Amino acid sequence: MNQGIFITAEGPDGAGKTTIIQMLAERLIAEGYEVMQTREPGGIEIAEQIRAVILDQSNTTMDARTEALLYAAARRQHLVEKVLPALEMGKIVLCDRFVDSSIAYQGYAREIGVDEVWSINQFAIENTMPAVTLYFDIEPEKGLERINLNKGREVNRLDLEDLAFHKKVREGYMLLKERNPDRIKDIDASKSIEEVYSQAENLILQAIKDK
Amino acid sequence: MNQGIFITAEGPDGAGKTTIIQMLAERLIAEGYEVMQTREPGGIEIAEQIRAVILDQSNTTMDARTEALLYAAARRQHLVEKVLPALEMGKIVLCDRFVDSSIAYQGYAREIGVDEVWSINQFAIENTMPAVTLYFDIEPEKGLERINLNKGREVNRLDLEDLAFHKKVREGYMLLKERNPDRIKDIDASKSIEEVYSQAENLILQAIKDK
Repeated sequence: MNQGIFITAEGPDGAGKTTIIQMLAERLIAEGYEVMQTREPGGIEIAEQIRAVILDQSNTTMDARTEALLYAAARRQHLVEKVLPALEMGKIVLCDRFVDSSIAYQGYAREIGVDEVWSINQFAIENTMPAVTLYFDIEPEKGLERINLNKGREVNRLDLEDLAFHKKVREGYMLLKERNPDRIKDIDASKSIEEVYSQAENLILQAIKDK
Repeated sequence: MNQGIFITAEGPDGAGKTTIIQMLAERLIAEGYEVMQTREPGGIEIAEQIRAVILDQSNTTMDARTEALLYAAARRQHLVEKVLPALEMGKIVLCDRFVDSSIAYQGYAREIGVDEVWSINQFAIENTMPAVTLYFDIEPEKGLERINLNKGREVNRLDLEDLAFHKKVREGYMLLKERNPDRIKDIDASKSIEEVYSQAENLILQAIKDK
């Protein structure tokens, strides 16, 4: 079976990962690779419906565990309908956020528990883990600053969380890096876009070579 | 803390559990008990939204694990917003279907795995398990016959499953009974409504006495 390569991007909003992922996809396509760039819910109808429930700002009573289960449900459907078929076709799949986001945000920062959120995500993804995860690291203050500069961006419930929360998210990612040193690769996202891109590109080219 | 009593009803559609639960609630209220009768999603806005995604007949590509995660999410929200507050007020909570349904239907009959579906439900309910579960047992043929007689009933995706599936669901419930002999009490639902009611009433009065 000619399996593709599954690569995820993680880190806080404002770290620039979406821009870099887009640039990487373009570069790889230009070099002749088959690439699928995605992020949950990724146009998958059922996952979009689930995401709409999560992001509905009138759902103020949503429990943190309900939210974590909904993220896992949307993840499952996106994986089954979009990621797995692309991997089976041998494509390089670049996915903006995956299980690590749930663990850092819900498990660690919202204090549901890292192992508990991992268990429901394990149920959702079975054994499909990324070969490489690019972690875009940035001080929370700097990340939020960049978000506020970017006026065209849709504001959702999660953006309204405060700085203390974003600091905890970063701690959650640090814990994940400690536990998964081979998979999660650090990128210093405080640098210029050219430098960040260059770090990400080197890591991806290495992952392709290692396949 | 004056905790109430949490009682659930389980079994296939057509076993009459909804009717019996209604009769039991009326009897207990007449005797002066504080009773809350419910079933997921139970008018809880977020749980209703999730249930709408599950039951949408156009969602034909829904993966079985996505569905199981959505049921767990709706369960969580219904529990937090409706069941737990009633129990904390000391009420008797009569809930039509709960975790056992997910295990029998998704875990066993749809073959996701009993332990795996239990794990996501454990995440959803933490430690809130019913004191007593009334299991309305009936031959699948007889249950389906009764459903078809009852024309006024809304038809959903799950009703379209075939008889073989319903037989597997029953096997799933048998397994649950073996594993939880103290909690799950058998009711022979093939009998007349008066006889079924009388069995259920005896079990509930015993549960109230044992409290």
